[in-house]
Amino acid sequence: MRVQVIGIGLIGGSFALDLRSEFREVKILGTDSNKEHLEKALELGLVDEAAEISEVAKADVVIVAVPVDVSIKVTKEVLDLAGENTLVFDAGSTKEGICNELAGHSKRRNFLAVHPISGTEFSGPEAAISNLYRNKTNIICEVEKTAFKLQERALEIFQRLGMRIRYMDPKAHDRHIAYVSHLSHISSFMLGKTVLEKEQNERDIFDLAGSGFASTVRLAKSSPAMWTPIFRENKTNVLETLNEYINNLTDFRNLIEKDEFERVFEEMERTNHIKDILNGINSTVKL
Amino acid sequence: MRVQVIGIGLIGGSFALDLRSEFREVKILGTDSNKEHLEKALELGLVDEAAEISEVAKADVVIVAVPVDVSIKVTKEVLDLAGENTLVFDAGSTKEGICNELAGHSKRRNFLAVHPISGTEFSGPEAAISNLYRNKTNIICEVEKTAFKLQERALEIFQRLGMRIRYMDPKAHDRHIAYVSHLSHISSFMLGKTVLEKEQNERDIFDLAGSGFASTVRLAKSSPAMWTPIFRENKTNVLETLNEYINNLTDFRNLIEKDEFERVFEEMERTNHIKDILNGINSTVKL
Repeated sequence: MRVQVIGIGLIGGSFALDLRSEFREVKILGTDSNKEHLEKALELGLVDEAAEISEVAKADVVIVAVPVDVSIKVTKEVLDLAGENTLVFDAGSTKEGICNELAGHSKRRNFLAVHPISGTEFSGPEAAISNLYRNKTNIICEVEKTAFKLQERALEIFQRLGMRIRYMDPKAHDRHIAYVSHLSHISSFMLGKTVLEKEQNERDIFDLAGSGFASTVRLAKSSPAMWTPIFRENKTNVLETLNEYINNLTDFRNLIEKDEFERVFEEMERTNHIKDILNGINSTVKL
Repeated sequence: MRVQVIGIGLIGGSFALDLRSEFREVKILGTDSNKEHLEKALELGLVDEAAEISEVAKADVVIVAVPVDVSIKVTKEVLDLAGENTLVFDAGSTKEGICNELAGHSKRRNFLAVHPISGTEFSGPEAAISNLYRNKTNIICEVEKTAFKLQERALEIFQRLGMRIRYMDPKAHDRHIAYVSHLSHISSFMLGKTVLEKEQNERDIFDLAGSGFASTVRLAKSSPAMWTPIFRENKTNVLETLNEYINNLTDFRNLIEKDEFERVFEEMERTNHIKDILNGINSTVKL
């Protein structure tokens, strides 16, 4: 099997690692606009060779793992050049834009719209890790628009990598993911910003911050180059979630201001229920 | 050494566990207004015997580990009854109120104002764990107001439990801790609320939420009975941090709304700097 990974960072590199350990006969080619990343990926053994986009026709599988703004453009280009039997899948955090843009493409049946719910706050080829996808959910959108035999090839890969498959409409995907992923990143970045602005003396943060703070601001370490395009692509949903979050925070602040601490208690008690959901996540997702 | 722990939950119970393993000859007495907790603590072997508050005069050390609203009242009562040689310390997340209230107490020198920056999102005696305090920061306020020999006794305990000591003014403590702890809890609770409100179908959350979401809402599992009094006690500082957080979120939302994505990028990039601070925390705090 010949696999060409376009964008050999955390996501693409982690696919490469697991493909190599699961498919003995695999040959992995790497393509990246960042020459340093490509060299690093070769050095780390993530890929066997560097390749140009123009070579995708020879590939059995092309994985497009680049920030979502360039992903649409790159995936289009790849599809234009793809062989009849080439499976092309992306891994982006937004799905409506790419599905819409590629809807009328003559090789739409070569494309599978994919979002593996996995990652870390790190980026680049050095961030690639084995088993990143094991026991993680992998959302597939508009599966019926992909050629059956290419669906099968994709599913075999996802299965060997240990992913749980869920099928979803791209619109619903983008709406839900705004709540459970995009909003978390913004809340974390702004929490980090608020604390950094206040605490000019970093020594004080260091001494007073415990594991709770570290946990809530962990995502503020994430890559702006990855996240800016996500917020642009999913603007409408992200704005909606942010409005609701800000309203909830404002209401909570007002309760504190007016000394309505019974209601403060109730608000928290109702939300405690999230325990049950998190326990569900914890049972399948390594934190 | 005779230690009486008042409030035998996560904090008091974890002190009991480590005291027992570090001080062989220790006798630990437990006091709790919640009879079930007290029975559980006896059953778990956290404490040797149940005791009444009236017995504190016999204790070498009294640890008051109850929610901060009752903590002031209970600590006063304990000090009223304390022996001349009894060390009394609290473990509350706010320090200005208790220091002010006890300033004029005739046995002020028996009291040490303490805040160990440690805990988990769980509560009650079953939540008690060994080594909760190892390598954690322990803030001590107004140390000069405590009798020297009782300071020494406290420091020996904290040292054996592996805590890093920092001395701080109670006002500064409450202001800083609002940023690095209290705000994190509110951001997490409101994030949980926002998602729960939207996602009536929990199955969808479960499937789409990854480790990033779990990390940012972890604190929403915390005890409302513990946190409501903290927000009340530290109202002024908490409101200030919340205002700044809401303003930062609103500014970020506006940048997205106006398609100013270069500035969205810059905002995140500037906050990325929090990595260095978190790496500092990670090196000493087990996440």
